[in-house]
Amino acid sequence: MQGTVVRLVKRPVGDIQPDIFALETVATAPLQAGEFLVRHTHMSLDPAMRTWLFESEDSYAEPVRIGEIMRSFGIGVVVESRNSAFPVGARVLGMTGWAEYVPGSPEMQIIPDDLPAEAVLSVLYVPGLTAYLGLVEIARCQPGETLVISGAAGSVGSLAGQIGRILGLRVIGFAGSGEKCHWLEIELGFDRAINYRSENIEAALDGAAPDGVDVYFENTGGPVQQVVFDRMNRLGRIAVCGVISDYNRETPAPGPSWLQVNLKALTIQGFVLSDHMDKIPAMTEVLGRYLADGKLHYRTHVLQGLENAIDGINLLFTGGNTGKLIVEL
Amino acid sequence: MQGTVVRLVKRPVGDIQPDIFALETVATAPLQAGEFLVRHTHMSLDPAMRTWLFESEDSYAEPVRIGEIMRSFGIGVVVESRNSAFPVGARVLGMTGWAEYVPGSPEMQIIPDDLPAEAVLSVLYVPGLTAYLGLVEIARCQPGETLVISGAAGSVGSLAGQIGRILGLRVIGFAGSGEKCHWLEIELGFDRAINYRSENIEAALDGAAPDGVDVYFENTGGPVQQVVFDRMNRLGRIAVCGVISDYNRETPAPGPSWLQVNLKALTIQGFVLSDHMDKIPAMTEVLGRYLADGKLHYRTHVLQGLENAIDGINLLFTGGNTGKLIVEL
Repeated sequence: MQGTVVRLVKRPVGDIQPDIFALETVATAPLQAGEFLVRHTHMSLDPAMRTWLFESEDSYAEPVRIGEIMRSFGIGVVVESRNSAFPVGARVLGMTGWAEYVPGSPEMQIIPDDLPAEAVLSVLYVPGLTAYLGLVEIARCQPGETLVISGAAGSVGSLAGQIGRILGLRVIGFAGSGEKCHWLEIELGFDRAINYRSENIEAALDGAAPDGVDVYFENTGGPVQQVVFDRMNRLGRIAVCGVISDYNRETPAPGPSWLQVNLKALTIQGFVLSDHMDKIPAMTEVLGRYLADGKLHYRTHVLQGLENAIDGINLLFTGGNTGKLIVEL
Repeated sequence: MQGTVVRLVKRPVGDIQPDIFALETVATAPLQAGEFLVRHTHMSLDPAMRTWLFESEDSYAEPVRIGEIMRSFGIGVVVESRNSAFPVGARVLGMTGWAEYVPGSPEMQIIPDDLPAEAVLSVLYVPGLTAYLGLVEIARCQPGETLVISGAAGSVGSLAGQIGRILGLRVIGFAGSGEKCHWLEIELGFDRAINYRSENIEAALDGAAPDGVDVYFENTGGPVQQVVFDRMNRLGRIAVCGVISDYNRETPAPGPSWLQVNLKALTIQGFVLSDHMDKIPAMTEVLGRYLADGKLHYRTHVLQGLENAIDGINLLFTGGNTGKLIVEL
């Protein structure tokens, strides 16, 4: 079969320019014993993709190499198979790639046919697992604590806030538009959403968290970081899920002094899901229950066709997306 | 009885100037039932004292208030008693104060007469407990890992390095003179001591830790901080014991970006001993065994008389002391 693939042809400097990617039409190879072929139907676009483009080998994930097909998570359907565990017609979830057809991998999971792809990619898979991991395992949040989330309208942030509410925390989110803040407060039940583009973020946070901040779920960096940091309570925990404002910068912005880390005995902990694979089954079960009970809301922003991923990924860095960014192939 | 006390009369701005303290001679009050009086014999001077002078209420310890006697740890002898648990002649250890006579407190511990005061204040009490806590409980150091310590010739740093060696880590220390570095390498068995004043710290650390740094025991902040941070390995732990270079600054220097915290899943954790009182008996036992086995070396820098504490405390911030700073009264 023939299908489109997107290769990385050079590394971005700053923002992702379309010319770092090249579209190509390639034929799939005949299957060897044990192999299977997946027609990719839904591809997730995630902020972490920017970090996979860094040249450094230090990161949790190996960089995508020049000439390689760009990496992604996604959902697809098995269309050819020489592996009885993955028969033709099976619906699979896992690491795919920016391609219409992707080679199957034994690490893919088979998922039920009736689970909407949007729910899987928006809640049950990377975003939901990341939100739950950060909040519960990394930040060890406790009922009654005050939680602040930056990038709160993002796919991870919006779930972290809802999970925080379910677990009995007071939840304050930062987002970049009045519409997003309205969604967070009215539909997702955040106690307060602060528009960091239009409000005085210091005064707004002082008003929303008069007794300080116990847990900070950090997605963005930027000016919000220092303002929240300055209001952390003693023994506060900061889960660093992402620093999206630094991903496209050649030199990352400095962070807060460690003086208050010392004086207030704060913990700042970075984390990535792939270091916690053992916890995924239990977390997936909890998320599935929350979702079935109607406790987790999400919205998706769907792009059509692989070629639209190339421009579309920048929506994540401009805040232009209005929900979990998914490419329907 | 009459004795000298040192009161805080104003808050320092930047460095500690002698005029923030005032000496006074006062008479001790008659004892009520249950009270006892201690003649202070050995007072510990510690970098943390600078943080007790901050106005902020956010810190782990309440600030010393204007007009109050300056706070300290120390050793003394009971000279009057209406408390049978603390008879006259008992030797006690605990929170004392910058004073020749201090009121006894039920939280004081009675210590054996034959344990040298220098060993207690240098190893078995705050410095040793802090070093052990940071290394073992906070940073969860493992044999074979590479440990870097800033302020390595200080009272806590020099013990952290020796404990790291006992536990099978590779230990690299930063100190501010050739003499201190020689002491660390030759007498304390550090694998490498780097003179941050005279060496190229980046090149020196690259040479000393070619495979990166797993655990960073942070005492000082300053330029060493970013250089070590940049060389942290994935899942590395940073125990923030102190940021001495920021204590005297009106505006603390910025810290590293959290981008690498995210990408490398690092943990930066501040800690103070007073949050971990439950671990003190077990840690004291371990330290006592190490000391009895001759595995922990220390040196002291003894000042004579309370009045010399006022200038002497600044030795901690200039690096002018050559061992645990103790005032003999």
